[in-house]
Amino acid sequence: MAYPTFIPPERTLMGPGPSDVSQRVLNAMARPTIGHLDPLFIDLMDEIKALLQYAFKTSNALTMPVSAPGSAGMEACFANLVEPGDKVLVCVNGVFGQRMVENVIRCGGQAVVIEDSWGSQTDAQKVEDTLSAQPDIKILAFVHAETSTGVRNDAQQLCRLAQKYDCLSIVDAVTSLGGIEVDVDGWGIDAIYSGSQKCLSCVPGLSPVSFGPRAVECIQSRSTPVQSWFLDMNLIMGYWGQGGKRAYHHTAPVNSLYALYESLRMLKEEGLEHAWDRHRSGHEKLLKGLSDLDIEFTVDEAYRLPQLNVVNIPKGVDDARARQQLLEDFNLEIGAGLGDLAGKVWRIGLMGFACKDRNIDHCIASIANVIR
Amino acid sequence: MAYPTFIPPERTLMGPGPSDVSQRVLNAMARPTIGHLDPLFIDLMDEIKALLQYAFKTSNALTMPVSAPGSAGMEACFANLVEPGDKVLVCVNGVFGQRMVENVIRCGGQAVVIEDSWGSQTDAQKVEDTLSAQPDIKILAFVHAETSTGVRNDAQQLCRLAQKYDCLSIVDAVTSLGGIEVDVDGWGIDAIYSGSQKCLSCVPGLSPVSFGPRAVECIQSRSTPVQSWFLDMNLIMGYWGQGGKRAYHHTAPVNSLYALYESLRMLKEEGLEHAWDRHRSGHEKLLKGLSDLDIEFTVDEAYRLPQLNVVNIPKGVDDARARQQLLEDFNLEIGAGLGDLAGKVWRIGLMGFACKDRNIDHCIASIANVIR
Repeated sequence: MAYPTFIPPERTLMGPGPSDVSQRVLNAMARPTIGHLDPLFIDLMDEIKALLQYAFKTSNALTMPVSAPGSAGMEACFANLVEPGDKVLVCVNGVFGQRMVENVIRCGGQAVVIEDSWGSQTDAQKVEDTLSAQPDIKILAFVHAETSTGVRNDAQQLCRLAQKYDCLSIVDAVTSLGGIEVDVDGWGIDAIYSGSQKCLSCVPGLSPVSFGPRAVECIQSRSTPVQSWFLDMNLIMGYWGQGGKRAYHHTAPVNSLYALYESLRMLKEEGLEHAWDRHRSGHEKLLKGLSDLDIEFTVDEAYRLPQLNVVNIPKGVDDARARQQLLEDFNLEIGAGLGDLAGKVWRIGLMGFACKDRNIDHCIASIANVIR
Repeated sequence: MAYPTFIPPERTLMGPGPSDVSQRVLNAMARPTIGHLDPLFIDLMDEIKALLQYAFKTSNALTMPVSAPGSAGMEACFANLVEPGDKVLVCVNGVFGQRMVENVIRCGGQAVVIEDSWGSQTDAQKVEDTLSAQPDIKILAFVHAETSTGVRNDAQQLCRLAQKYDCLSIVDAVTSLGGIEVDVDGWGIDAIYSGSQKCLSCVPGLSPVSFGPRAVECIQSRSTPVQSWFLDMNLIMGYWGQGGKRAYHHTAPVNSLYALYESLRMLKEEGLEHAWDRHRSGHEKLLKGLSDLDIEFTVDEAYRLPQLNVVNIPKGVDDARARQQLLEDFNLEIGAGLGDLAGKVWRIGLMGFACKDRNIDHCIASIANVIR
């Protein structure tokens, strides 16, 4: 037998995701598989939905996890809302904004792009100028927490602009949900997607999404079919629908949903606001520790994400070698820079269950060790 | 706290999937999450690939699990190989053939449909007549093991026709892989997809796929981009590529891949041919037991699937009530009929780890009980 049992080491996951997963969540996932149409599973789906509504702060009926990673959640939003020829204004200040543009194009839409530099916030004035100059823009899309740069875009303000100019909004909350405030109903977000493996601290592979009434109306009144069968919300609604009989669409990832349920229970037990506080104070502790090592934060304090800390690699330190040493000698994963920031920054995640004193102490001490 | 811990019952899963998952696989999945770019995880990906090549009987370099259920694997094959206007001949004799037609249409292709009745095999003569009459058909697509009817289509013969008429073949092996012979290289299959939750007895949520050299050439020489970013094999190849540096595409479902690896190890330990034999002898045992209860099989012996036994519901038995009783009183899940066969048949799965004497005895005894 050439294939040995795979026993992974116990890493401390402080990169851009996946984040540490608690033993509670791992245990939940390992419980016996039941059928995806089992009445007990249908009940569980209702509870997952209610907990996601809590996490997103929404009463949207169409709130559920897409059975695939965050990239598929992104695609679910664009493929359902964009029809060929539709104009979509996309705010780009990092990798995931760029990916949104790619999604618009692949749906046959016309992407109008506003670019801001990596590490800066999206400029709301430019957004407003563009929306007012081009009244045929149907959708405003932006990333709330840009995982590639550590920047928080001002979701509330951007959604206000979308409403003012009668656009639908699509919001990437992959890294924000559970880590900083996200208020779907309060901010009037029309479509939003997240990921299981960031501040929810669940295993990777699921993408919670939520669609508001205006988005649902748009999906139901399309003149062309959604180009993806797998992600067609018109069909998925039949399986994740409210109560009653569920129509088979695809086989849900049953055990991953056990895990998501458990991670959402943990979020509910802690309370959303307490979770945000924990991320903020974890960030402050990390900031203090790294500042003592003369490590500088890349992003301005005003719009810095507490859950994804992007720092300049100290002068004279070999990026790849330092990260390898952290991984091999200290079992600590931090993230490399992406795209424009590759080789220049490190991305240190403090997401969900990973955001705790033990990890932060270990991270500061280990980094001190490898940059010495 | 309104959300109690979810402790699923220990069902015996003998429906059309998911099938029983062994404790080995569940334990593997519950091991600590590591990063999707961790060097140890990259090594694991190579081993998963090699084991999938073994299961598919192929040396195709582009063999990997799509990070989503079988429906997404189906869509990965069609979205990558079909360009707008392409003619695709689809053999329909059940739900999953119909779903293939839907996929062709959503990719902008032109579906040429050959229909055979539900419960019968695809008629190879009709396929040959159509291929010879319409030389502009680019792809022949069919379901090897039709999960909705329990019929085995003759994959070897149909692939031979695809080659004779210079078409690419797309084969649905969701329910066949690991249960009956599948020989990708021997039969000259160009693109194939399966599911983790059937005869591989892994948790649901992954879809192993394999693309041969002609399919890869077709994907790389497309004149239009693949409409799905998430499923674009040109991009996914960069992450699941052979050796060397891996480009980030999406966050892989790390723990589900631990589970898939363990289930593939079990298949390798048993040996493919032994697994096929076990499914065949399990089927014979079930056939004998149900025949003793005067329950008739719906599908002709010549093309009946051993791993998915479709039987006529005995006269006078209330379908829904009987299945509910099996579930509630005996913790046994069997499947309802789908589409044309709803209310007329039951579908009894003997897939992977679920295909064993203990389950078969329990199934026969429980059915005897509820139809009395």
